[in-house]
Amino acid sequence: MRVYNFSAGPAVMPIEVLERAQAELTDWRGSGMSVMEVSHRGKDFVECAADAETLLRRVMGIPDDYAVLFIQGGATGQFAAVPMNLTAPGDTISLVNTGQWSSRAQKEAAALGLEVAVVADEAESGYTTTPEPGSFEAAEGSRYLHYTPNETIGGVEFGYVPDVDVPLVADASSTILSRPIDVSRFGVIYAGTQKNMGPAGMAVVIVRRDLLGHARPGTPSIFDYAKMADTDSMLNTPPTFSIYLLGLILDWVENQGGLEAMGKLNKDKADALYQYIDASPFYSNPVDVSARSWMNVPFLLARPELDKQFVSEAASAGLMNLAGHRSVGGMRASIYNAMPIEGVLALIDFMDGFAARNS
Amino acid sequence: MRVYNFSAGPAVMPIEVLERAQAELTDWRGSGMSVMEVSHRGKDFVECAADAETLLRRVMGIPDDYAVLFIQGGATGQFAAVPMNLTAPGDTISLVNTGQWSSRAQKEAAALGLEVAVVADEAESGYTTTPEPGSFEAAEGSRYLHYTPNETIGGVEFGYVPDVDVPLVADASSTILSRPIDVSRFGVIYAGTQKNMGPAGMAVVIVRRDLLGHARPGTPSIFDYAKMADTDSMLNTPPTFSIYLLGLILDWVENQGGLEAMGKLNKDKADALYQYIDASPFYSNPVDVSARSWMNVPFLLARPELDKQFVSEAASAGLMNLAGHRSVGGMRASIYNAMPIEGVLALIDFMDGFAARNS
Repeated sequence: MRVYNFSAGPAVMPIEVLERAQAELTDWRGSGMSVMEVSHRGKDFVECAADAETLLRRVMGIPDDYAVLFIQGGATGQFAAVPMNLTAPGDTISLVNTGQWSSRAQKEAAALGLEVAVVADEAESGYTTTPEPGSFEAAEGSRYLHYTPNETIGGVEFGYVPDVDVPLVADASSTILSRPIDVSRFGVIYAGTQKNMGPAGMAVVIVRRDLLGHARPGTPSIFDYAKMADTDSMLNTPPTFSIYLLGLILDWVENQGGLEAMGKLNKDKADALYQYIDASPFYSNPVDVSARSWMNVPFLLARPELDKQFVSEAASAGLMNLAGHRSVGGMRASIYNAMPIEGVLALIDFMDGFAARNS
Repeated sequence: MRVYNFSAGPAVMPIEVLERAQAELTDWRGSGMSVMEVSHRGKDFVECAADAETLLRRVMGIPDDYAVLFIQGGATGQFAAVPMNLTAPGDTISLVNTGQWSSRAQKEAAALGLEVAVVADEAESGYTTTPEPGSFEAAEGSRYLHYTPNETIGGVEFGYVPDVDVPLVADASSTILSRPIDVSRFGVIYAGTQKNMGPAGMAVVIVRRDLLGHARPGTPSIFDYAKMADTDSMLNTPPTFSIYLLGLILDWVENQGGLEAMGKLNKDKADALYQYIDASPFYSNPVDVSARSWMNVPFLLARPELDKQFVSEAASAGLMNLAGHRSVGGMRASIYNAMPIEGVLALIDFMDGFAARNS
């Protein structure tokens, strides 16, 4: 029996996608082989990868002057790859710190010999806010400004795209494909695939072409954007199954009505959950209303001693993986694209019963 | 209908593994979730990853003083990761050049500021040989000696493990798990997974623990062996589906009788094919008998103008992906662990008929 899976990532995938992958797992396109078994340089797979890129460009509205790359190593790999491609040692970059993922990006950049100017820091609010629009700008001489549009752990999401005069770099791992976005505002958008784009094992990197070709000497080839762009991300054997699944998921997104429809659905789901939490004396969400994530909804119980019982009873009701991140505790419901509204309503129903039984 | 897939990688996987993955793709361990959808930090997946490591240690006989790492980026990622972990800029390493993959490892190391001493170079034979045992040693001051036990493109395989007085580093991508190996002879063994260990998207790295902890400043965290060892390869979200499949494949290898049995089967398959080729006036294999690969068998037709026809008629007979690498032409049959002897016999049968029709 399928359950409702609120995992923060790896996360729920559309059941239609899983069932299609299942149906053709031993025989893809009538080839007598699994898609995992075919050569990445064969006609069928080259077409599959090109289709995935075309679909991503269409769904996200990616302009032609951006390259789309498929790179192994997830977003954590990109924490290093972005500085390696866009800076030299001693350069300055700017960074907005809204929580743990910003902080990890910052550390990896600093380890590459960069001056990291933290131009907005939400530590004071306990990372429950995003900076006011227009309240920060890039530090002088910055090669780029990095921010995290959605902090998966804290459940904090920017409701706007920062306006800065240097290339804007975004770790969009947990927000990509969740709503429309104006790609032309960015220098680089990167995202690990394991939230809205399939299983773990790949990052999608969308990079403005004028930023290509400046990798530091000694950058690992698989992280060199220009080399990857020149080879259609097939400098080496790409993670073929991940690319195939990305294509299936993009097809699914398009069939749902694209990012406009996804955005509306995601807003509806998030609104329902936040409204219930705000109206309840038993549950609370610490995040400023203007900065609440559509994807990751942390919440606290009025009686934290019941946290384990909540998680356990929820699991018995088919509502899985609701424990908050080990670093912050409490609960967290991740409600990515593939979580249907029915899952959110079932969660609210369970929360209501739990509160009634334990208030 | 399943075909016989002679692809060099991604490559054939055991049908039993594919069918099991298929059966549980939407519901793993009765969780109501795919293994692709569960948290890598959840109890079930942590156990799954630990089991894969335990199985690999048992199947390969990996001593306790070696760490086993699962790292994204394939062997090409390791071409950079090995020097980053084992050297400083300006250091010397030694390298044995037996073909294209040796050469790519060499270029990536040189780009990291190393002096690469090529201590044996098989260019003169057109890369149809391996150096004589005992005919080379590491250059003075070398931090390690790198070699490629099996060259996937040229079909050249070492029949022995070199004896050197520096850490021995091996790109074992296309030979790992194909026969028993004495891990204690090596400093580092690394291998992309897409030949004998599953789909593309991961490298397995087996590294002697005394070599940990010396990564260069600025090494991407996901390539830092010590950081990966300290976190059981979960510094960031690992490629969970690849790890799960690796476990299934290792289970299959063990059920076949382990590496002794795999080695015997692989030798039988290779012997049958080489014997047929050598006895035929229509086919030839250019590789020195002492250096012939058990995994990748290149062969030439007496009438190269028939290459396309051969590939096409073979495909009609359910024998797929026999074209040689684009850089060398001719044919190549990759006969990894998961290729049954029946596939090799079917290939020989087809080759014989084709030769008869076209001689």
